[in-house]
Amino acid sequence: MRKVTVAGAQLGPIQRDEPRAEVVTRMLILMDEAKQAGADLIVFPELALTTFFPRWYMEDSAEIDSWFEREMPNAVTRPLFERAARHGMGMYLGYAELTPDGHHFNSSIIADRTGAIVGMYRKVHLPGHAEFDPERAFQHLEKRYFEPGDLGFPVWRTMDGIFGMCICNDRRWPETYRVMGLQGVEMVLLGYNTPSVNSQNSAEGPERRLFHNRLSVQAGAYQNSTWVVAVAKAGIEDGFPMIGGSLIVNPEGRIMVEAKTEADELIVHACDLDATLFGKRTIFDFARHRRIEHYGLICSQTGAIPPAP
Amino acid sequence: MRKVTVAGAQLGPIQRDEPRAEVVTRMLILMDEAKQAGADLIVFPELALTTFFPRWYMEDSAEIDSWFEREMPNAVTRPLFERAARHGMGMYLGYAELTPDGHHFNSSIIADRTGAIVGMYRKVHLPGHAEFDPERAFQHLEKRYFEPGDLGFPVWRTMDGIFGMCICNDRRWPETYRVMGLQGVEMVLLGYNTPSVNSQNSAEGPERRLFHNRLSVQAGAYQNSTWVVAVAKAGIEDGFPMIGGSLIVNPEGRIMVEAKTEADELIVHACDLDATLFGKRTIFDFARHRRIEHYGLICSQTGAIPPAP
Repeated sequence: MRKVTVAGAQLGPIQRDEPRAEVVTRMLILMDEAKQAGADLIVFPELALTTFFPRWYMEDSAEIDSWFEREMPNAVTRPLFERAARHGMGMYLGYAELTPDGHHFNSSIIADRTGAIVGMYRKVHLPGHAEFDPERAFQHLEKRYFEPGDLGFPVWRTMDGIFGMCICNDRRWPETYRVMGLQGVEMVLLGYNTPSVNSQNSAEGPERRLFHNRLSVQAGAYQNSTWVVAVAKAGIEDGFPMIGGSLIVNPEGRIMVEAKTEADELIVHACDLDATLFGKRTIFDFARHRRIEHYGLICSQTGAIPPAP
Repeated sequence: MRKVTVAGAQLGPIQRDEPRAEVVTRMLILMDEAKQAGADLIVFPELALTTFFPRWYMEDSAEIDSWFEREMPNAVTRPLFERAARHGMGMYLGYAELTPDGHHFNSSIIADRTGAIVGMYRKVHLPGHAEFDPERAFQHLEKRYFEPGDLGFPVWRTMDGIFGMCICNDRRWPETYRVMGLQGVEMVLLGYNTPSVNSQNSAEGPERRLFHNRLSVQAGAYQNSTWVVAVAKAGIEDGFPMIGGSLIVNPEGRIMVEAKTEADELIVHACDLDATLFGKRTIFDFARHRRIEHYGLICSQTGAIPPAP
């Protein structure tokens, strides 16, 4: 048994004028709770330090850049790394990254139990749009503010297991999990910010959005025989509701624990990384069962091309 | 609206000594019921004409070949095609195929509303094993009796839509749906025979097997914004139980109708092929959102290769 006790640290809403330092204070409280609960690893959401700013249309580059971090850790986030190290706790943290050469990414890091950053990920599947869209109930401008990730989907050997990361919309794409599954991933960590209503279809409300969240995460876990830990920023932020539903899913695709609120809330589960082995050796033994000679379109063609009418 | 009313024709068990002609009689009854229910298309299971013979270890090639069809239609199955044509009903039919040059496949066909075969599929993802395995509670010898399909995952424009096929274990592999999704598939038809207990893990019983069936089908539908019609052969066959749970899933991944028994049973739903459009134009608009530059491993590497320890 290779046990890792994971705490999913769901965050309630962060309003537009809430300083990062106050958010970090909330996160430290959750981290202390996680320690009390015996956690070895804490998982925070996507863009955990601020409001989900891509809902706001901005043109001024200084204003845009004010939402980004220029280094990690930095003065505001260092207490998180120090506290995690003191607690002997690994950490996943999502944030907006501005690189020294001016690139913008929706990023996450994984730190080991000494607080050292061992892996970095940049969101590949950016949802939404790049220009103001008057047809939507609200904006979702990730394609405006971020470039698609340029690091692929690596995995890291750390904390006695094989860990991968993705962010929010990545979780709806089976390619995300499969690329990590092909590297033997045992636990995927991911954060998300998901509006409770589809901005282009008001009939798709929180119940369906939570259903799609579960479905995507559970399928990714099952089909790659991996743990998946998915953690939300939730609740009414800047007047716009987001789903909670943070959850930890086992390698059979079953939900082990799920958040009940849309506020700051810890979900904790003791995960056995060896529970991934049965699926990887039997029904999802890729070496025996996959037939890559028939998968070519997945890697050669981006968009759908229906047959001629 | 492009409406196709689909009848999933779940079959109860077929015992080893039950002649194909008797099975066809049962299928014709379901077909007449489907006509009464207004169906335009009927979907039968995988290996619909016989017991699930891969549970039996055989060495004699004549005995093995006795489970296969050498042409389609043939004398025994022609009444199905004639009745479907008379009813103006399309048909999906799974059967064991022996080609004129001696190849064995686990195959299916789709016939249009005139009874003409317009598409053929050969199962790509063969589960199980090739030699007798004394460690299993029962055998699953698909890798012994079939070659992996050599036709890929084509789609067909027929019956005013874009249709694809797959078979049983294919439904657990996201690559299956994605290759069809990249060709604009609007409805995937599939049959299955799934033991109610995992032959290598007796704790995995019918509840979890039904859960995995639903999860795989729902995720494939949602992530490609396509209808999926999944139809079981079910019940206790040759003494071995198989799950039912035939279901029709909409392009949002929601179950529209699900079988209640493990016997011959029809499930019917009026499916609007235009309901696929919203997902294909928004969250799963592949051309805007997929990032094939990061998917390479999916097509270049068959088995999992974990990072060096």
